[in-house]
Amino acid sequence: MADLTITDIDMAAMERFYRSNLINSLSGFKSVNLVGTIHPQGMTNLAVFSQVFHLGAKPVLMGMIVRPDSVPRHTLANLLETGSFTLNHLRADFYRQAHQTSANYAGSEFEACGFTPWFSEKIAAPYVREASVKIGLVFRERIDLAINGTVLIIGEVVEVRVPADCLLPDGYLDIEKAGTLTSSGLDGYHTTTRLSRLTYAKPDREPREMDCSGEKTGEQQ
Amino acid sequence: MADLTITDIDMAAMERFYRSNLINSLSGFKSVNLVGTIHPQGMTNLAVFSQVFHLGAKPVLMGMIVRPDSVPRHTLANLLETGSFTLNHLRADFYRQAHQTSANYAGSEFEACGFTPWFSEKIAAPYVREASVKIGLVFRERIDLAINGTVLIIGEVVEVRVPADCLLPDGYLDIEKAGTLTSSGLDGYHTTTRLSRLTYAKPDREPREMDCSGEKTGEQQ
Repeated sequence: MADLTITDIDMAAMERFYRSNLINSLSGFKSVNLVGTIHPQGMTNLAVFSQVFHLGAKPVLMGMIVRPDSVPRHTLANLLETGSFTLNHLRADFYRQAHQTSANYAGSEFEACGFTPWFSEKIAAPYVREASVKIGLVFRERIDLAINGTVLIIGEVVEVRVPADCLLPDGYLDIEKAGTLTSSGLDGYHTTTRLSRLTYAKPDREPREMDCSGEKTGEQQ
Repeated sequence: MADLTITDIDMAAMERFYRSNLINSLSGFKSVNLVGTIHPQGMTNLAVFSQVFHLGAKPVLMGMIVRPDSVPRHTLANLLETGSFTLNHLRADFYRQAHQTSANYAGSEFEACGFTPWFSEKIAAPYVREASVKIGLVFRERIDLAINGTVLIIGEVVEVRVPADCLLPDGYLDIEKAGTLTSSGLDGYHTTTRLSRLTYAKPDREPREMDCSGEKTGEQQ
């Protein structure tokens, strides 16, 4: 099948939703998390986000892109006021309800979409009890991106709750085993199948596969 | 199986590589791209990146986190000097070679790792001919993140080359059909299986599945 070339001129002329579907597909598969926050007066909030990414391991930082003019704006207001938020990986058994949190509800999306808030003693923000992988963060920095009006929120991880049998001896968390999904575009949800983990790349040898215990296996190629 | 709770105190005490493996797994599945650049004097460069994300559809912007002190620092230097870079989705038939680009080579990783540079008339940076999904970007903005010394690079998409049969009528690009991989942690590579696409969420109805033509199917639940 032939390749199709799409230029900036083509993109500028596209209908709004068509362009949004296309552009959201371009970066590749995305992380997809339910972001939990709470209003200072107590109402919980839950919103599905696919613009969350690793920022660094020391300190332990994650980044999240927020559009202040979008429905999940409560997430931004709450995390700025309380100084905390949670990330909760999506699983196949509740991805429809997770997708539904992006609808514009008057009350809490926890109740409206069938999720159970769970609180630790570490932070104010609620976790999603149904999620296998839960991450608690404190707000560290807000960077306004003038180029398109979005906001980069930087959070520091202060607490992690994961299934014990998904944490390998070398620290790799087997999120596939934990049932974590990935997303594509604005509305595609996918399970995964691991090809392999590959050993640290060095110029004088081909990468080798590692087994699920994090040990090196197989012959050097 | 019981849940394991890991606190900030635990993380601070972790051995460096253990912590890096764990923290890189936390954000969920990641996009994984080969980033192509060229030095003004002509040497091409190729590096695998998993910190690339969608930033906005109007203008068409993507973000990429770069560590200036890491091996792929040539990527940063080249894209700043020439003003362009490419993103090329990974496929299963060359993910080992793609992983290998993170080794510290003296010459071009295209040659060292078995990739073919391909140039369009639109930008200076080289594409990876072997990739099904190719994205050409011009450099728009550099934001230094003082919090951990990383750099956020913002690029504007000016050219896209995709398999024609992967572009659906509503603009959704079926990257699973194109063979695009996702990654986990520092070294895990995965294929995907779509559960479904879900319709735009509204408060008064459950999301429905869409078929691969982008049309709505199934009954409202």
